[in-house]
Amino acid sequence: MATAKIGILTVSDRASRGEYEDRGGPAIREYLAEVLSSEWEPVERIVADDQALIEAALVELATAEGCCLVVTTGGTGPAPRDVTPEATEAVCQKLLPGFGELMRKVSLEKVATAILSRQTAGILGSALIVNLPGQPRAIGECLDAVFPAIPYCIDLLDGPYLETDESRLEAFRPKKK
Amino acid sequence: MATAKIGILTVSDRASRGEYEDRGGPAIREYLAEVLSSEWEPVERIVADDQALIEAALVELATAEGCCLVVTTGGTGPAPRDVTPEATEAVCQKLLPGFGELMRKVSLEKVATAILSRQTAGILGSALIVNLPGQPRAIGECLDAVFPAIPYCIDLLDGPYLETDESRLEAFRPKKK
Amino acid sequence: MATAKIGILTVSDRASRGEYEDRGGPAIREYLAEVLSSEWEPVERIVADDQALIEAALVELATAEGCCLVVTTGGTGPAPRDVTPEATEAVCQKLLPGFGELMRKVSLEKVATAILSRQTAGILGSALIVNLPGQPRAIGECLDAVFPAIPYCIDLLDGPYLETDESRLEAFRPKKK
Repeated sequence: MATAKIGILTVSDRASRGEYEDRGGPAIREYLAEVLSSEWEPVERIVADDQALIEAALVELATAEGCCLVVTTGGTGPAPRDVTPEATEAVCQKLLPGFGELMRKVSLEKVATAILSRQTAGILGSALIVNLPGQPRAIGECLDAVFPAIPYCIDLLDGPYLETDESRLEAFRPKKK
Repeated sequence: MATAKIGILTVSDRASRGEYEDRGGPAIREYLAEVLSSEWEPVERIVADDQALIEAALVELATAEGCCLVVTTGGTGPAPRDVTPEATEAVCQKLLPGFGELMRKVSLEKVATAILSRQTAGILGSALIVNLPGQPRAIGECLDAVFPAIPYCIDLLDGPYLETDESRLEAFRPKKK
Repeated sequence: MATAKIGILTVSDRASRGEYEDRGGPAIREYLAEVLSSEWEPVERIVADDQALIEAALVELATAEGCCLVVTTGGTGPAPRDVTPEATEAVCQKLLPGFGELMRKVSLEKVATAILSRQTAGILGSALIVNLPGQPRAIGECLDAVFPAIPYCIDLLDGPYLETDESRLEAFRPKKK
């Protein structure tokens, strides 16, 4: 079976200029290394908070790079430079509002400002794109909530068969009809 | 009082070609027969997973057929052929995001993949359109969650006065101001 | 520090014609007077349920009047004249779906018809716009749920520093990174 390629896109003005060490991208890579038991390979990018650059990176990862999953970190808040959800919505053929709803719900158990997060998810070609927050701690909480549904979503998009370390996180696949 | 007409639209490539027996449409009809105590009449249609055909069926049921409520089953997932939510959004004048949020919430208590469902609801002319999942079991769970709000919504659209068997399901109507 | 201006927009055909005493606007003003401990000033408007008029009022309050926060009441249901969410979405550069999700969730604990509410929130220039329901009792429930996140949102928009009476309601601000 082909190795699954997973795009990790850090969206941050400061990290893209090298003024700030990217912590979101590495947190996602470590999470995936811990949870996935099947073969996978990260494809990492860092871009500024610029809608056109984010869109171009999402398209490149989902199409030219052939990633089955692209996970973003950063740029989902209400500030003027936060445009990751807009870029995601612009490039996706389908939106999956359940991801944002669930991530806000679990974050809200920790911080009242979780409702300011505009995270979404969607389908671009045969890739699932999921927006995560910028904070490393919040990344893990959000992935714990939504990752169980991701392998089956990728099955429905005819992507590689992702397997998880079930002692860490159980992927949910419905029984065959 | 005029009999309430309720559209039941099954969206399925296989069922529309007769390769597969439609189970979603009958599950909705049986649910409504069990829950409604006022007079009603089903208007049933089966279409393929094709956005233009779904839109045409929704418009026919809501306008030419005069249905006060149109319930769909199927086509709400992330797969390329799943376009029922897109068709619903394209024909509705207003969207009601609370229906999808609540249906995903109750389904999530059963299966982690509930967040992949893109179900929505909206208003087309004087009809309420509600997307349900394809699986018969999930149809009942979702209707139990959202049906209590449906009779009052139809009142607000100047439709027929739907009454429910209160031993089975209680419709909620706010007290008059 | 400059006094924070907060727009309060009542959307109601009857109240705008003087046929009905506006109760939503005063309920919001009283709530804010009780909760805010920093200096603030209300800027109140009443308009009919007309999308163009609502859009014009939102733009005037957010730009000409310089409000950092604009709160609306009314016009968020499924009836044909209810267009406050459409007006809000039309004028905002960014939408904040978490506000509507949380308000529907808390209202749903009281009434099954909460899913009919189409309330949303968004950013117009440097103002946060939040739709509230029309009923005074529901206004307080919704503000109790979402107000803790509002002062920090306004910080992110470079607005005035809102402070709350912490014995009544605690504003949440993340610790500095």
